[in-house]
Amino acid sequence: MGRQHHDLRGATPAELRAVIRQGGYGGHTAGLAAGALQANIAILPEAAALDFMRFCQRNPKPCPLVGVTDTGDPMLRTLGRDIDIRRDLPAYNVYRDGKLVESRADIVDLWRDDSVGFALGCSFTFEHALQEAGIEMWHIENDTTVPMFRSGLQTVPAGPFGGAMVVSMRAIPEDRVDEVATICARFPQAHGAPVHAGDPAAIGIADTGAPDWGDPAPLPPGHVPVFWACGVTPQVALERAGLALCITHKPGHMLIADVAEDAETTILAPD
Amino acid sequence: MGRQHHDLRGATPAELRAVIRQGGYGGHTAGLAAGALQANIAILPEAAALDFMRFCQRNPKPCPLVGVTDTGDPMLRTLGRDIDIRRDLPAYNVYRDGKLVESRADIVDLWRDDSVGFALGCSFTFEHALQEAGIEMWHIENDTTVPMFRSGLQTVPAGPFGGAMVVSMRAIPEDRVDEVATICARFPQAHGAPVHAGDPAAIGIADTGAPDWGDPAPLPPGHVPVFWACGVTPQVALERAGLALCITHKPGHMLIADVAEDAETTILAPD
Repeated sequence: MGRQHHDLRGATPAELRAVIRQGGYGGHTAGLAAGALQANIAILPEAAALDFMRFCQRNPKPCPLVGVTDTGDPMLRTLGRDIDIRRDLPAYNVYRDGKLVESRADIVDLWRDDSVGFALGCSFTFEHALQEAGIEMWHIENDTTVPMFRSGLQTVPAGPFGGAMVVSMRAIPEDRVDEVATICARFPQAHGAPVHAGDPAAIGIADTGAPDWGDPAPLPPGHVPVFWACGVTPQVALERAGLALCITHKPGHMLIADVAEDAETTILAPD
Repeated sequence: MGRQHHDLRGATPAELRAVIRQGGYGGHTAGLAAGALQANIAILPEAAALDFMRFCQRNPKPCPLVGVTDTGDPMLRTLGRDIDIRRDLPAYNVYRDGKLVESRADIVDLWRDDSVGFALGCSFTFEHALQEAGIEMWHIENDTTVPMFRSGLQTVPAGPFGGAMVVSMRAIPEDRVDEVATICARFPQAHGAPVHAGDPAAIGIADTGAPDWGDPAPLPPGHVPVFWACGVTPQVALERAGLALCITHKPGHMLIADVAEDAETTILAPD
């Protein structure tokens, strides 16, 4: 019954979510539903929701908040029509006491009356814009995961949430670094402009060949390592907070929204 | 001891806040601290804070959230150095059960262990950018308050917060309407691009000569009425929610932050 990534290339966001909700696809979402916003997900108890929301507000580059459910309501109403945060992602990670204990296809039985769901923008958005400008994304073309590092930059804390900023790295031709920053600054809902370009040691990264997450990528001659605030940052902050129960998307397995990735705001008005 | 607006024209944000904190200035802040972000303020009990924050997230154009305090901490740490939300505004409005009961110079005795302070961006930011582009702001040049209307557009509700979107109106030369939208879209932290240009009736406004707040302004031949989401929207939502206690800035009497009004984010990293 399972569908393959290549079967789904032309599908709309609503068609994709319908297939996923029926258990028909459990793979990654990179390259699907071109032009639609994709989002990282975190689901927490209401008792931690205000602090997490403050953490996102204070760290808009790693944690660009694009949607929040009402408490106990699993529908992400402002990101599209009929988006059920419990069933419409291809895969979820479940954390207990800050430790990953399980990956699974839906979390219907874990959703509670006090659950609050958060959606955060992701790097797919600016990667598409860079590719359209003719800037090569090596990790996409080579089907690997972008290299990510625990940087020396610190987040601004809120309640139990804080810690290091995680950054992703991409090699950019040195004569296009300024242009890349200008393009990405247009997408504050997707990590915005890079946080650093050039010497990795300046942001506490000792060896660009040994990423903390993802796969190594080459730095060809004439290219500069450029670093973006990364959506793994909130995941690390959630692990560090050690909540009794917390649920996220499985990395790369995103929520696909109806909102366009280049929309002025991420809010779809209700009917 | 009181200082006049014209005495303070060259002062920095920190100097202005020091004068205000000492009770030396109680006037409006338009035209002060050029280049610095100014903000609307709302102070609520923590019990309503998560819903209010969701309301802001769902209505980013009328309610662009630029800062939030920790619960019970009166310092707005990410908007500048030593900003005390209880004392650093020229004037406050106090609401009880949704009704304005009092305006006053500080709210030190009303701040509680469960208070949460919110800062929302304001129209001064995009008005400065439009003036720099050579677009006349009639209400500023004529020392009146911009006309504001309760529109037929609805906010996206969250908990007790909801209701009509309030919009401000400015007359723009018809050949510059697109340019104005492009300029304003660069300031999502300050209401962003207009919500409507042209026929007022299309957004439920019957008579542009009879604003619900502020002063009437002319619509000269060759000009189009252009409407922006307005910071009075959250004030109306707060009144409608009828909280036992709620505090806002007095209109026009804003918080002056250290953050630059054209900064990529409104977050000043801690020292």
